[in-house]
Amino acid sequence: MLADTVRPVLESEISDWDLTADVVVAGYGIAGVAAAVEAARAGAEVLVLERSGGWGGAASMAGGFIYLGGGTPLQKACGFDDSVENMKAFMKAALGPSTDEAKIDAYCEGSVDHYNWLVEAGVPFKEEFWGEPGWEPAHDEGLMYSGGENAAPFKDMIPPAPRGHLPRMDNKRTGERGGGYMLMKPLVETAEKLGVAAEYDIRVQTVVVDDKGRVVGVVARRYGKPITVRARRGVVLAMGSFAFDEEMVRDHAPVLVGRPGSAVEAHDGRAIRIGQALGAATAHMDAAEVAVHTVPGLMVRGILVNAYGQRFIAEDTYPGRIGQAMLFQQNNEAFLIIDQAAHDEALSPGIPGPQPTWVCESAVELESEMGLPAGALTSTVDLYNRHAATGADPLFSKKAEWVKPIGTPIAAFDLRGMTSGFPLGGLKTSVDSEVLHVSGEPIPGLFAAGRCTAGVCAGGYASGASLGDGSFFGRRAGIGAARGPVDGD
Amino acid sequence: MLADTVRPVLESEISDWDLTADVVVAGYGIAGVAAAVEAARAGAEVLVLERSGGWGGAASMAGGFIYLGGGTPLQKACGFDDSVENMKAFMKAALGPSTDEAKIDAYCEGSVDHYNWLVEAGVPFKEEFWGEPGWEPAHDEGLMYSGGENAAPFKDMIPPAPRGHLPRMDNKRTGERGGGYMLMKPLVETAEKLGVAAEYDIRVQTVVVDDKGRVVGVVARRYGKPITVRARRGVVLAMGSFAFDEEMVRDHAPVLVGRPGSAVEAHDGRAIRIGQALGAATAHMDAAEVAVHTVPGLMVRGILVNAYGQRFIAEDTYPGRIGQAMLFQQNNEAFLIIDQAAHDEALSPGIPGPQPTWVCESAVELESEMGLPAGALTSTVDLYNRHAATGADPLFSKKAEWVKPIGTPIAAFDLRGMTSGFPLGGLKTSVDSEVLHVSGEPIPGLFAAGRCTAGVCAGGYASGASLGDGSFFGRRAGIGAARGPVDGD
Repeated sequence: MLADTVRPVLESEISDWDLTADVVVAGYGIAGVAAAVEAARAGAEVLVLERSGGWGGAASMAGGFIYLGGGTPLQKACGFDDSVENMKAFMKAALGPSTDEAKIDAYCEGSVDHYNWLVEAGVPFKEEFWGEPGWEPAHDEGLMYSGGENAAPFKDMIPPAPRGHLPRMDNKRTGERGGGYMLMKPLVETAEKLGVAAEYDIRVQTVVVDDKGRVVGVVARRYGKPITVRARRGVVLAMGSFAFDEEMVRDHAPVLVGRPGSAVEAHDGRAIRIGQALGAATAHMDAAEVAVHTVPGLMVRGILVNAYGQRFIAEDTYPGRIGQAMLFQQNNEAFLIIDQAAHDEALSPGIPGPQPTWVCESAVELESEMGLPAGALTSTVDLYNRHAATGADPLFSKKAEWVKPIGTPIAAFDLRGMTSGFPLGGLKTSVDSEVLHVSGEPIPGLFAAGRCTAGVCAGGYASGASLGDGSFFGRRAGIGAARGPVDGD
Repeated sequence: MLADTVRPVLESEISDWDLTADVVVAGYGIAGVAAAVEAARAGAEVLVLERSGGWGGAASMAGGFIYLGGGTPLQKACGFDDSVENMKAFMKAALGPSTDEAKIDAYCEGSVDHYNWLVEAGVPFKEEFWGEPGWEPAHDEGLMYSGGENAAPFKDMIPPAPRGHLPRMDNKRTGERGGGYMLMKPLVETAEKLGVAAEYDIRVQTVVVDDKGRVVGVVARRYGKPITVRARRGVVLAMGSFAFDEEMVRDHAPVLVGRPGSAVEAHDGRAIRIGQALGAATAHMDAAEVAVHTVPGLMVRGILVNAYGQRFIAEDTYPGRIGQAMLFQQNNEAFLIIDQAAHDEALSPGIPGPQPTWVCESAVELESEMGLPAGALTSTVDLYNRHAATGADPLFSKKAEWVKPIGTPIAAFDLRGMTSGFPLGGLKTSVDSEVLHVSGEPIPGLFAAGRCTAGVCAGGYASGASLGDGSFFGRRAGIGAARGPVDGD
């Protein structure tokens, strides 16, 4: 039936349009709202179609980091120097291999402007820096390292600056008003003030094309019935990743099978398949954000070892880099080794922390308890301690402040399998958010942004890259869609 | 111009067909010849279009392994037991994660028949087993382990059997008649006897579809001019991988950038993009075969360490598994550590072998020469030697026959960057080699096989898997294409 197919529908098959707007945006998460705002500002009548019962998407559930830099007012207020060139260099080094250089260049060159755009739309940032390692600030601080800029291997290659910009939360403790919500709410209010209309409980199923192949609308489904929506100027796909499409995960990012994280069920890959059915190219479908579920304050104070008792990463880097290394390179197996003193230092008194899996009087005893071969862990601890005695970590270059010999009692946390994540790949888009056909040409009338596209990440990740490229290239998608057909289209 | 676009051309746009056949096969490598033979046997008039000046493709340049098992006559003649179930279990364990189980089931269940099919077509196999570790037999032996079946972690999980079947070479020393050639030649002769026609120097650029979306021909280019070729029954794409399309490699398998191997320049990804332009799905575009360029006989007798001086794999496994681990998990960095005695044992007297990068009187001296931190290599060698004294390798389970303490003098080979490979991903096809649309439905009239498709490998690899699935599913592609439209198509 019309409302089920992912194949493009011909305009000639549509007898009646149920709804019409200049620009139709599919999905009301971060990319969708950014597109809607800019399309409306460009003078377009905008209609957002959202699958769930309200705006927000994965963004409103997220911590809320937006990766920004190059000298934003918040960076300056917190006393950090940054430059567009350093930001570019870091993103190309950390988010690859094989990042989209044109996208990263545009993103970095426009980053200060994008910060101001968010602030003008009402997104609040508290001018305070949070310097502890971890996923998020403890309170409502607005700035934090979120990609490993100040850890090996980057800290000595590229002058580091924190670029994780976090909207100020109303109430961190209850989690009711997280940073992602505080990002989305003012943007949606901005869209509403600009006259953007939204329809909920509508699943976009495919697009409508005219006889020249230009996208001129969508077919959606509402309560089981098809709805046709005409787009006079253009369509923006902003429907999120394929984290919850099992077949796509198996075919493209199989390490994520069974462990979707930081995604919503609406992330069913539909937008990607809609584009592919038109001949769109994809990129980096295997790439994934990966979270490792433990306490970062423990990780930095201990050592992480793999299934062979070997260290594999600087423990003080961005936890998402640790998660990726663990899932992609260590077969999703890791243990955190830490002594009693470091453990007690990491966990705030009175707040119950995770319990170690094994606690022993010596590393020899611990490796035996863990089932590791004799010498596998002790040789690692001995080597670490030999250099830690002088505050050095010549193998992985953990910062000296976190390097101390591991004493006894000694414990291990079993982190095997303790990861989750979401895919980063998707439709290949131009720097202006046009969906690209495998011929290399844009598909007329079709734009996309957010996690249904391959954005600034090709392999690596930094917290804030998704809300960052979703909002940044979402704006460009809205601008492009609002422009409408030009001569020759 | 007509002959340049990758977009499907409408049949109504074709005024004249330059050539016509029942089944048109694009590409005359292993998948193409297998398709041609079966299509002809099914009664179809077959025309093969080949981009280069002659048949052969990458197959005729290859060593020639075909991965077969389940109790082939060659396995039995060499004294090995194998079963379909063991073959399935190994392929699903070693070639994943996330292999296409239906394809592997069909492949294993049909493997003995496929061996017989090859022999009946004139492919010669010498009934002799080669048991040394390495990429290929030293002489013209017909059977060898080619996937790590008899090494950790598989040897104790699944009863091992050698499944690398190698056509007998005319003259191994000169390389003029390698196993791949000896595979291709009798198959091409078989095709010719069946009346298969071939046209050379023709590049297939795209397909022609009728008004219902059925593929009914191709548009090709010969000496810069377009040629239209009608296919009354079906089209088979057998045009190889995307190893030589730089943009596709960057977008999908960036670890291979700059290191294509075991591929021919014709592997430009065109078949994949032709399918994608019709809305075809792809799978496992990031997966890659990876060769590591060193002497396997040295590797098994030494230890492989990464940039941190740590071991990372059983050195006696299939070298392709070592290559993949090195490229995907160890940042393409590895060193081979070996003592004088093992080195001399590995290299035949009088035949010049590769020279080590560093030779030292002790491991302490060696780690310093290599620029490794104090203790990084010595702790690894000490741990290895501690267990090797009793012939054990509890960390990686290298077989006891290869486990001896490493003495002095001690040398290291610098293997950093010493890999090359080709991508394994491509069009998603059914178990009957139909090209699948992202809707999940077959694209009528279009079949594909070989390295332009995602075959039995999803991540891992075994030598012979490419010629194996190319020939096996190539046959099915030919049978499917020869069937032609059925009611309702």
